[in-house]
Amino acid sequence: MSDPLVIFTPSGKRGRFPKGTPVLTAARQLGVDLDSVCGGRGICSKCQITPSYGEFPKHGVTVQDDALSAWNAVEQRYEEKRGLKPGRRLGCQATLQGDVVIDVPPESQVHKQVVRKRAEAREIVLNPPTKLYYVEVAEPDMHDPSGDFERLQDALRDQWGFERVSADLNILQKMQPILRKGDWKVTVAIHLGDEESPHRIMHIWPGYYDGTVYGLAVDLGSTTIAAHLCDLASGEVLASSGVMNPQIRFGEDLMSRVSYSMMNASGAQEMTEAVREGMNGLFSQIAAEAGIDKNLIVDAVFVCNPVMHHLFLGIDPFELGQAPFALATSNEIRLRASDLDLNIHPSAHVYLLPCIAGHVGADAAAVALSEAPDKSEDLVLIVDVGTNAEILLGNKEKVLACSSPTGPAFEGAQISSGQRAAPGAIERVEIDPISKVPRFKVIGCDLWSGDPAFEDAIATTGVTGICGSGIIEMVAEMRMNGIVDAAGLIGTAGQTHSANVFADGRTNSYLVYDGTEKGGPRITVTNRDIREIQMAKAALYSGARLLMDKFGVDKVDRVVLAGAFGAHISPKHAMVLGMIPDCPLEKVTSAGNAAGTGARIALLNTEARAEIEETVRAIHKVETAIEPRFQEHFVNASAIPNAVDPFPILNSVVSLPEETFNTGADSGDGGGRRRRRRA
Amino acid sequence: MSDPLVIFTPSGKRGRFPKGTPVLTAARQLGVDLDSVCGGRGICSKCQITPSYGEFPKHGVTVQDDALSAWNAVEQRYEEKRGLKPGRRLGCQATLQGDVVIDVPPESQVHKQVVRKRAEAREIVLNPPTKLYYVEVAEPDMHDPSGDFERLQDALRDQWGFERVSADLNILQKMQPILRKGDWKVTVAIHLGDEESPHRIMHIWPGYYDGTVYGLAVDLGSTTIAAHLCDLASGEVLASSGVMNPQIRFGEDLMSRVSYSMMNASGAQEMTEAVREGMNGLFSQIAAEAGIDKNLIVDAVFVCNPVMHHLFLGIDPFELGQAPFALATSNEIRLRASDLDLNIHPSAHVYLLPCIAGHVGADAAAVALSEAPDKSEDLVLIVDVGTNAEILLGNKEKVLACSSPTGPAFEGAQISSGQRAAPGAIERVEIDPISKVPRFKVIGCDLWSGDPAFEDAIATTGVTGICGSGIIEMVAEMRMNGIVDAAGLIGTAGQTHSANVFADGRTNSYLVYDGTEKGGPRITVTNRDIREIQMAKAALYSGARLLMDKFGVDKVDRVVLAGAFGAHISPKHAMVLGMIPDCPLEKVTSAGNAAGTGARIALLNTEARAEIEETVRAIHKVETAIEPRFQEHFVNASAIPNAVDPFPILNSVVSLPEETFNTGADSGDGGGRRRRRRA
Repeated sequence: MSDPLVIFTPSGKRGRFPKGTPVLTAARQLGVDLDSVCGGRGICSKCQITPSYGEFPKHGVTVQDDALSAWNAVEQRYEEKRGLKPGRRLGCQATLQGDVVIDVPPESQVHKQVVRKRAEAREIVLNPPTKLYYVEVAEPDMHDPSGDFERLQDALRDQWGFERVSADLNILQKMQPILRKGDWKVTVAIHLGDEESPHRIMHIWPGYYDGTVYGLAVDLGSTTIAAHLCDLASGEVLASSGVMNPQIRFGEDLMSRVSYSMMNASGAQEMTEAVREGMNGLFSQIAAEAGIDKNLIVDAVFVCNPVMHHLFLGIDPFELGQAPFALATSNEIRLRASDLDLNIHPSAHVYLLPCIAGHVGADAAAVALSEAPDKSEDLVLIVDVGTNAEILLGNKEKVLACSSPTGPAFEGAQISSGQRAAPGAIERVEIDPISKVPRFKVIGCDLWSGDPAFEDAIATTGVTGICGSGIIEMVAEMRMNGIVDAAGLIGTAGQTHSANVFADGRTNSYLVYDGTEKGGPRITVTNRDIREIQMAKAALYSGARLLMDKFGVDKVDRVVLAGAFGAHISPKHAMVLGMIPDCPLEKVTSAGNAAGTGARIALLNTEARAEIEETVRAIHKVETAIEPRFQEHFVNASAIPNAVDPFPILNSVVSLPEETFNTGADSGDGGGRRRRRRA
Repeated sequence: MSDPLVIFTPSGKRGRFPKGTPVLTAARQLGVDLDSVCGGRGICSKCQITPSYGEFPKHGVTVQDDALSAWNAVEQRYEEKRGLKPGRRLGCQATLQGDVVIDVPPESQVHKQVVRKRAEAREIVLNPPTKLYYVEVAEPDMHDPSGDFERLQDALRDQWGFERVSADLNILQKMQPILRKGDWKVTVAIHLGDEESPHRIMHIWPGYYDGTVYGLAVDLGSTTIAAHLCDLASGEVLASSGVMNPQIRFGEDLMSRVSYSMMNASGAQEMTEAVREGMNGLFSQIAAEAGIDKNLIVDAVFVCNPVMHHLFLGIDPFELGQAPFALATSNEIRLRASDLDLNIHPSAHVYLLPCIAGHVGADAAAVALSEAPDKSEDLVLIVDVGTNAEILLGNKEKVLACSSPTGPAFEGAQISSGQRAAPGAIERVEIDPISKVPRFKVIGCDLWSGDPAFEDAIATTGVTGICGSGIIEMVAEMRMNGIVDAAGLIGTAGQTHSANVFADGRTNSYLVYDGTEKGGPRITVTNRDIREIQMAKAALYSGARLLMDKFGVDKVDRVVLAGAFGAHISPKHAMVLGMIPDCPLEKVTSAGNAAGTGARIALLNTEARAEIEETVRAIHKVETAIEPRFQEHFVNASAIPNAVDPFPILNSVVSLPEETFNTGADSGDGGGRRRRRRA
């Protein structure tokens, strides 16, 4: 009679093994992804499997009731102490007695898939840098003297196949009593290293440690620092939190921070200390929220723009403030928490994603990791919209990247009634095509402003201003309804047939909302506001257009809007504005905080780190500042939607009025005011 | 006509190269050891060579006057600014024009031999872990953006062949202005790494840096900490200095320090802080003495016994105080200075030699490195005599090691008139065979005590006691002159025919010097003193004898006495005492501070580190505490020289009286009082 056949699902891997082979052994020999921390000693219960019985015509086997050995004492004890789910067995205890089909449930897989909310999102396969291993260490022997640590190394080699595991001094300092307390059995958390650092012990516990270790994915923005605390064994996000970047007191935007460092001898250092302090506060808060010991945080991944990157590392960003915008270092960075004075495990691994170029930082690299343009079959344009837009264009063949100085208009700054996204801010706008009167929604209220219940609903917040996504819809609606012409001029009330337009100095403005009667603001859109939006969207579009030139295409298959702001932009309005190239509207999607997601992927999957390093090296960097065509595209893109580029798909959906309000007095200077701005 | 032939001396390497080839290029292609920091740019002048002209029958060439190119502008300028020694040329500028013989002077060799005082000492070939490299870095280019550091890496790869050089944050933080100040030419000090750490930049200077970097070789003893500051480019010792180990306030010997850590919760930590503080004081002092910046100290090697090793690293030595004497870690240790709070370059490489066993530390490993028993053709016994003796026995075939608890008698402690080696201490003794009266020399005076000028010469120091080497000669002389018998009993004045012997309670004592008239001490040797020396020497001999058993021999070819104390021991007296095995007297030599020398070798030659790690792994460790024969040897070795081992070579030189003073009352108990003692 032949050896029992075992078939594992979902992998489909199969093989024959001698009767009595433990299921875990069979799984390992077949390369089936079945977890075990205790190495098959019946302690950790990570190797739980579910045998199936009966007929399996698909697999060509019949599984008898006695296909696996009967429950043994170890399983019995485990069941009594902790309980096993019905139908489950311990893979290290159950042995093969006959042909059997065995399912490995997701939680028993090492490389489990991390659940994500977004359906279209790339899957995250767990492959964390730090894992737990239970090990039995030989006792010291005077006949063959060796250090306790060397015997621990030997045990890890013999029981887990690690060639050489290192340990920092803090482990060597506390290891001896722990080995003895655990009666020479310990659990260690090992950082599995990379090409530059070998396997390294991060923690050691006596006996079997029934806990986990944690990691942080941190998105260090100019305005906010956001962190996700993840369980490295499950990939789950246990807590997320954010704080304002304390550097804001040195300057709202990046250039003013660079200036601060230029004007003050210790400026860069002050900002370095501020951001690290802010981060440490955030880490304490998030650890408290999740109820965990900060010392168990053994990994941290950071993404940020180049100026934040340098200031976080303690590098003066001086060179980033002037051409040729030389980064001190562009490659990925591996450090220890103590190098950055971070209050997590002192030798926690810190990983900063590589920067793409002087204006395209590790945050853009993280977007690339999350959205994977390099794996895309169709040509995708990815835009991370902020005060500086990072733009990626590519497919499987190649990926190009640039940044474009959009300025802060998209965040509501430099707009007369603009404001940050906050309750009370107008975020959605519709202008009635007949009356030319606007209706709108504000953040914190689901009703349109025309609704009878609207005033009551907004009683606490009021209507306070227009946020970034609101101003985009506003200008697009004004263009669609003939209030603004292609050149960006607001017509007179007569020209536009709108009672909301009023003369405002040498130009016209458009009244959106008058709250003055109730002590609120009078919210208008001035022609200067239109100019600001024109410049911002022209910068964005011309960056994208330049990449399309370099790629040798004049259309893209799809557009991904990344960033928190991107999540709120209406694709149609963005396209009417000419912010993004012409493209089927359903092909314009939002990726949310793709940079933060990229950080989380790099935290949970070490291979993704190597992957993004490779991708970044392969990305073609385009510097808009030295591309003559950028200026040309910019001028053309100042028109709404564009002076030369046709928008055939957009035009099939929306028809834009062709009147022009040009009186010859105030036209065409928008494109000439180009400034280099960053944030 | 064939290409010019070049012959390099002293290597004898030769080859033909096209006319016009620079000498440096030819040397590199032939693998001739010719230094260059600037990479052949005529800046550093490290590649100086001396061409020889005329007939060279030995080499079969005639060198014409125009065999090398004429002086060029670079050499001219160098000569004017700095001057070249007569006959010297710059190897990177002079080109081959005809057959030539070229001498590479020692100072132009990278792997120069370091000059040593001891003729028989192993040669130290310089191969330091950190070297200087001059490099020209590409300027940033917006068309192909990359970090300044990545371009520096590229330059180091292209110009020096380094695959990937890393840098700590402190280098990244200061690099950008230095690159610009040096107009994209810099000198970097690179730590060349080892299997675990890649090449790493330690320092960066604008332009060509005409200086050097330094290293420390530190011998961390229980009593003193001694450090040598070395120039890593020349291997020279620039300054040496020592301080008392501040841990002495926690206990004189090692066991009392281990006890202190057991009795006090923070005891180990206090001692760790104390030793690091003491070390930092020493480093400041030695750097001031040499007039160098401590930040230029980029390497440090430490040797010490296991307890010092653990306390220095911040590991509680608790386990070393009890069987099975388990070290926390026995392998070599690589750290950074900041890990140990050392006030040299914060990321200076720190290297601790491996420990051989729980009682045989990194100091013994350093002795093995310096004395190289594993390379010896004949069988050598190496004894590092201290309060604990470390013993090595071996030859090219194998090396054995053990430690033996000699106790502090050899340092003058536990001897009634004993004292540390200091001015006024008796260090040499002769007893007149007829009168049985002693004469002696004290430290600080070259005259014998019988000399008429003696009393004047010692007027300031006086005669204060007997130091370790003095007591050995004293007891040996007493044995040779029939005052002490083989069992270690002092006879009566009558039995010994010595007026210096007097009854002293139940036993007899021997008067060495009576200084009471001048208010000085009365120096005597009591029978109890003899017992102490018997136990100490028996411990030493039985350790050596045990290793001989394990090796399967009953004699050794030579004996090396290491340690400062070993340098002062008279071989003949040591052998009369039976401290060391029988052996031709001229084959007993002193190695001085071999542990310190081993530290210096490991500092100056990285390959020596790998070598000693290999040697230590291969050494057979013998634990005397669990060897039954050790006790037997100890009892036999209590006799002077030995109860059973014949000393044929000694007997051919010295004839020892055979009387015995045994009255049956006080015999043979010496061997029974064995205690485990360490220091």
